[in-house]
Amino acid sequence: MISHFADDMANRVQQLNSRLVVGLDPHWHRIPESFRAARDHDPFQVISDYFRLVIDSTSAYAVAFKPQIAFFEMFGPDGLRALQELISHLKARDQRIIMDGKRNDIGSTAKAYAHAFFDSPDADAPYSSDAVTLNAYLGSDSIQPFLESPRHGIFALVKTSNPSSGDFQDLRLESGITLADKVAQMVQRWTEVSVGSSGYGNVGAVVGATYPDHMKRLRTLMPQCWILVPGYGAQGGSDEAIKAAFQAGTGALINSSRAICFPSPSDDGLEAAISKAAKSSRDHINEIAFS
Amino acid sequence: MISHFADDMANRVQQLNSRLVVGLDPHWHRIPESFRAARDHDPFQVISDYFRLVIDSTSAYAVAFKPQIAFFEMFGPDGLRALQELISHLKARDQRIIMDGKRNDIGSTAKAYAHAFFDSPDADAPYSSDAVTLNAYLGSDSIQPFLESPRHGIFALVKTSNPSSGDFQDLRLESGITLADKVAQMVQRWTEVSVGSSGYGNVGAVVGATYPDHMKRLRTLMPQCWILVPGYGAQGGSDEAIKAAFQAGTGALINSSRAICFPSPSDDGLEAAISKAAKSSRDHINEIAFS
Repeated sequence: MISHFADDMANRVQQLNSRLVVGLDPHWHRIPESFRAARDHDPFQVISDYFRLVIDSTSAYAVAFKPQIAFFEMFGPDGLRALQELISHLKARDQRIIMDGKRNDIGSTAKAYAHAFFDSPDADAPYSSDAVTLNAYLGSDSIQPFLESPRHGIFALVKTSNPSSGDFQDLRLESGITLADKVAQMVQRWTEVSVGSSGYGNVGAVVGATYPDHMKRLRTLMPQCWILVPGYGAQGGSDEAIKAAFQAGTGALINSSRAICFPSPSDDGLEAAISKAAKSSRDHINEIAFS
Repeated sequence: MISHFADDMANRVQQLNSRLVVGLDPHWHRIPESFRAARDHDPFQVISDYFRLVIDSTSAYAVAFKPQIAFFEMFGPDGLRALQELISHLKARDQRIIMDGKRNDIGSTAKAYAHAFFDSPDADAPYSSDAVTLNAYLGSDSIQPFLESPRHGIFALVKTSNPSSGDFQDLRLESGITLADKVAQMVQRWTEVSVGSSGYGNVGAVVGATYPDHMKRLRTLMPQCWILVPGYGAQGGSDEAIKAAFQAGTGALINSSRAICFPSPSDDGLEAAISKAAKSSRDHINEIAFS
């Protein structure tokens, strides 16, 4: 039983010697046609079978898994039943789940989202996760409902990896800092009340690997925050940004989705190719973390 | 068949003489216990039956319906099957659907969300809607995948109705305006390419009814945008803010959820109480719109 999200992550990073998060994004057309055809193109069967295979092939190398809920949602209730299957499978393997939904709302609606993803003393969540990604544009009271138990963590969007992320995030405020800096300061403040023995609290940040200079600055603004780093691999994130996310080899979780889940075809078969991609990503990240 | 979201809304406002959006928020404990017990507390049955009743009792007074997806999501795949039932029911009654999900993501993930909510020439969406709410913090490229067809609209969060909305939205930029103002300027720019004969484009804004001064300023920054206004009724939004959202009696959609879906018990029965609440909200909003 996990009692503190951030401390648990720190322990796992040490024990497993991994900083790799495997992203589970069911891109339908990237799943081999033969695999889909063998299951009559049934979304539930294809997605749950394929990603069970991904989980089994990468479990030894991942510190956590990050399902992207959009790719399940688009298949309707059957897609979300597949997500439930994969959650059960991950839990049976004692894996951690960071649900990437970027949810954001207020009052009772924020509470409803929290109930969808976090187990409570009253009820199990339908999509039970250890942490979720959130968009903080609505302010503190939109974040609080997710911080009721130290067992759960959140990652607030600070600086995203996409080309247009600067439209708002890079705006300079009257005080001289950027909006992303201001969000980072708030994230650091939110995390301070839950800092555990690892030195990290349960409010983390999402900072893309595609902007190394931003990563350096934002890391110093959030010394007690885990940073979840998307954009490594397929999106062209840089080793420099990844290096800047770490503090003494810890404090950052590097996500890779496509490069691991959908590797180039290999003579050794699908499982071996996925497993190899995960191992090599883990090793490469470990090298950068201590470089 | 709708060919242009904003023009269709303008036509409906005229034809139906309504500016009321009925919010569908399945707060489990607000649904009468006797109603739940009669359906063995089965989430799918309770939610789909109760909100079918709400739709049937309010259809004459609503210009659109706004399901809040969080309250369906929290019940797992069964909750989302109930949402699909209600969508079918709304479409059979020629009603418009604004899906309140505040989704936000980038690249292929933004496209996956668009496929979840908007029908395309290739495929019907599992949660087929006419418009969606979005959070714009990730910038232009997170919005574009939702603007592929003029048949669909979006509402970007500009100024939300909650107490902490000022944490980021009210921050003053170096240029002297607030962040919410800047988002409003971008929303106006995004809508300009799709302005139809009504004078409105397909990119609208969410501005809460709880901040009248902000509403006045934001309305002038977005003359060609529909404004979706939450916070009326239960959240204590002001008539002054609602008045400021309208331009010559149009251009604003006022949402009410709890006050209509869960009225005080009345001797006339549930349907009559819901119907009366919707009629009186519609009439009150119409009065303000032309005051």
